[in-house]
Amino acid sequence: MSEEYLFLRACRREEVERTPVWLMRQAGRYMAAYQKVRAEHSFLEMCKNPKLAVQVTLQPVERLGVDAAILFSDILVLVEAMGMKLEFHEGLGPRLHEPVRSLEGVEKLRVPDAEKELGYVMEAIKLAREKLRGRVPLIGFSGAPFTLASYIIEGQGSRSFRFTKEMMFSQPETFHALMEKIADAVIDYLNAQIHAGAQALQIFDSWVGCLAPEDYERYVLPHMQRIFASLDARGEVPVIHFANQAATFLEKVRAAGGDVIGVDWRIPLDEAWRRVGYDVAIQGNLDPMALFAPLEEIERRVRDILAKAESRPGHIFNLGHGVHKDTPEEKVVALVRMVKELSAR
Amino acid sequence: MSEEYLFLRACRREEVERTPVWLMRQAGRYMAAYQKVRAEHSFLEMCKNPKLAVQVTLQPVERLGVDAAILFSDILVLVEAMGMKLEFHEGLGPRLHEPVRSLEGVEKLRVPDAEKELGYVMEAIKLAREKLRGRVPLIGFSGAPFTLASYIIEGQGSRSFRFTKEMMFSQPETFHALMEKIADAVIDYLNAQIHAGAQALQIFDSWVGCLAPEDYERYVLPHMQRIFASLDARGEVPVIHFANQAATFLEKVRAAGGDVIGVDWRIPLDEAWRRVGYDVAIQGNLDPMALFAPLEEIERRVRDILAKAESRPGHIFNLGHGVHKDTPEEKVVALVRMVKELSAR
Repeated sequence: MSEEYLFLRACRREEVERTPVWLMRQAGRYMAAYQKVRAEHSFLEMCKNPKLAVQVTLQPVERLGVDAAILFSDILVLVEAMGMKLEFHEGLGPRLHEPVRSLEGVEKLRVPDAEKELGYVMEAIKLAREKLRGRVPLIGFSGAPFTLASYIIEGQGSRSFRFTKEMMFSQPETFHALMEKIADAVIDYLNAQIHAGAQALQIFDSWVGCLAPEDYERYVLPHMQRIFASLDARGEVPVIHFANQAATFLEKVRAAGGDVIGVDWRIPLDEAWRRVGYDVAIQGNLDPMALFAPLEEIERRVRDILAKAESRPGHIFNLGHGVHKDTPEEKVVALVRMVKELSAR
Repeated sequence: MSEEYLFLRACRREEVERTPVWLMRQAGRYMAAYQKVRAEHSFLEMCKNPKLAVQVTLQPVERLGVDAAILFSDILVLVEAMGMKLEFHEGLGPRLHEPVRSLEGVEKLRVPDAEKELGYVMEAIKLAREKLRGRVPLIGFSGAPFTLASYIIEGQGSRSFRFTKEMMFSQPETFHALMEKIADAVIDYLNAQIHAGAQALQIFDSWVGCLAPEDYERYVLPHMQRIFASLDARGEVPVIHFANQAATFLEKVRAAGGDVIGVDWRIPLDEAWRRVGYDVAIQGNLDPMALFAPLEEIERRVRDILAKAESRPGHIFNLGHGVHKDTPEEKVVALVRMVKELSAR
C-alpha cells in the first residue's frame, strides 16, 4: 500500500508522475483554521492533546492538498520528558528552566521511555493514521541532538550559542555525554514513532549551521551516524535529515546519514544535490519569505527549483524552513497547486 | 609612511614578515578598560563623543597589540543621520522608530552630508590618527546597504527578515530605491572618512547571509558594485568587504568588490580563498566562541587557520565575527600573541 504513495516513492528515488510537495510548519499560525483551535488552547496543550494535535495535523492535507502530513508537535516535548521544565511565552519562544551547563546537570537528565512518557505523541500518530485513512503518509519527527543540546544548554533560542559552544570547546567530555544521552533519547523516541505508525521521519537540526565544518565533524556527526544506524525499519521508513544553514558542509551532513537531505535556500538546489550525491533524495528549497511575493514571482521561483531538480527521481518540494506565521494563506494554497501542475511529467 | 604598516601591506598582498591581526569588536565589553568608560556613559554617547570614542578605539592597540585600530562607532549612526530615531536598550539591541515600509517612507529618508552631519565621526578619525601617532593604521567603516536596509525596514534586528524580504519580493522598486539611497549615503560617508584620515575601510554586511544567492545577485550586488566604484582614493585606502554567513555565494561577494574579503568560520579558510581567488586578500576566520576554549585548543585552531593560509601574502588574521562580550580578556590577549608568534616567517 505504502508503495503507492507519491511522497514515499520519491523518498526512495523511484520514478514519479510529478514532484511531491509538503511544507515545514504546514500546520501553523498562518492558517485560519489553525488559529481557531489555537485561540482556545495553549500551544503545549495542542501538542499534548492527541485529538487537537491530529485536528491541526490534518488541516493542511485538506486545505493545501499536500502529499504528506507531518504530526503537529514540538521538538522540545522530548526535552521536557528528559526532565526539564518547558514553557512557551507568546512572542518570546520556548524557555527551559535551569539550563544544563555541567556534568552533574547532564547526569540528572533522563532518557525517557518514549512509548510511555511521550504516549500522547504515539497516540496522536495512531489517531492521525486512522483519520488520514490512507490519503497521504504521516511523517513523524524529532529535533537532532545538537539542536536539542543548544536549547538544553542555553535555556532558550540563541544567536551566538555562547554557552553551547563554551561547553563544547572547554568541556568536550561533558558536551559529548550530553549529546550521547540526547541521541539515546532521540533513537528511542523515533523508534517508538515508527512502531506507532509513522511512515517517514524527519530529523530537524535547526541550529547546527552555527558550527564550523570541522566542529560539526567532531562534535555532531558521530552522534548523528549512531542515530541513523539505530533506527528500526530502515529502508521501509525513509528518514529526512534537515540541517539548516549547513550548506557549507553538506557533504558531512550527507555522511551523517538520511535517505533524504533537506536543504535551505542559501544554496541552489542543483549545486546542493550535486554535492550530496545523486544516490540520495533531496528536499527543498524555496525561501519561505518568497510566499510574500506576487503569484508570478512565486511561480518563477517554483519553475526555477523544478528546473534545477531536472525531473530527476528523488526530489521532494518543500520550503527551506517553516512557513512564516504572517504568510498569506492563499499564497500557500497557490504554491502547492503550482508545484503539482508545473512538475507533472 | 603607510607603506611600512604590516596590515596595509597585507591588504595589498605584499610579502610580510608575519600575519597581521586585528579583531572585529576589539574595542568592546569583554575588556575591563572599556567597561570602565561604559559605566559612566551610554553606548551612543560614546559613539558621539570623539574623545570617548578615541579613548576606547585605542584600548585594544595598547592592551592587545593588534596591528590595526578600528574606529569605535556603530553602523546605525548613519541611519540616524538619514532621519530615523535610534535608541539602544540594554540587552535588547538597537531600536529604530517608525520602520520604513513604503516608497513614501523611503522618500522621507535623507542622504546626509557626512562631513557635517556625522562630523563627530570625522573628528574622532582625526583625533584617533593624532593619538595613534603612526603606531598602527586606523580602519573606518560602514554598514552595507542590505544590512542597513534590514534595520530600517524591520526597526530592529530580525531572524526571519520578514518585512525586509516582503518589500524586496513584493515591492522591488521600493526596495531598490531604498538600497540606492543608502548606497549614496554610504559612499559619501566612507569618502568623508577617507578624507578625515581613515587608512583602510571595512564594509560590514552582517545580515546578507539570509539571502538566496540569486537574490543577493539581483537585489544587493549592483548596489555594492556601485559603492566600490565610487570610493575615492581606491588602491591607496584598501577596502575590506565582510559579508557574514555568505559562504554559499562567496564568488558573488568577491564580484561585488573589495580589496580584502572577510569570511566567517562556516567555511575553511583555504576553501574560501580558493573560491574568491588568490588575486584578492582574505581576512578571517576563527569562530569567536573558540576564545572560550583552553589555550592549547585556541592554539591548535590558530595553527590550523595559518596552515590553511599557507603563508600566502594577503592573509589578515581576524575572527569570523565580533568578540563576544563574555570572552575572557586574557584569552583575547593570548590569541593576538599567538598569531604573531606562530605566523613569523
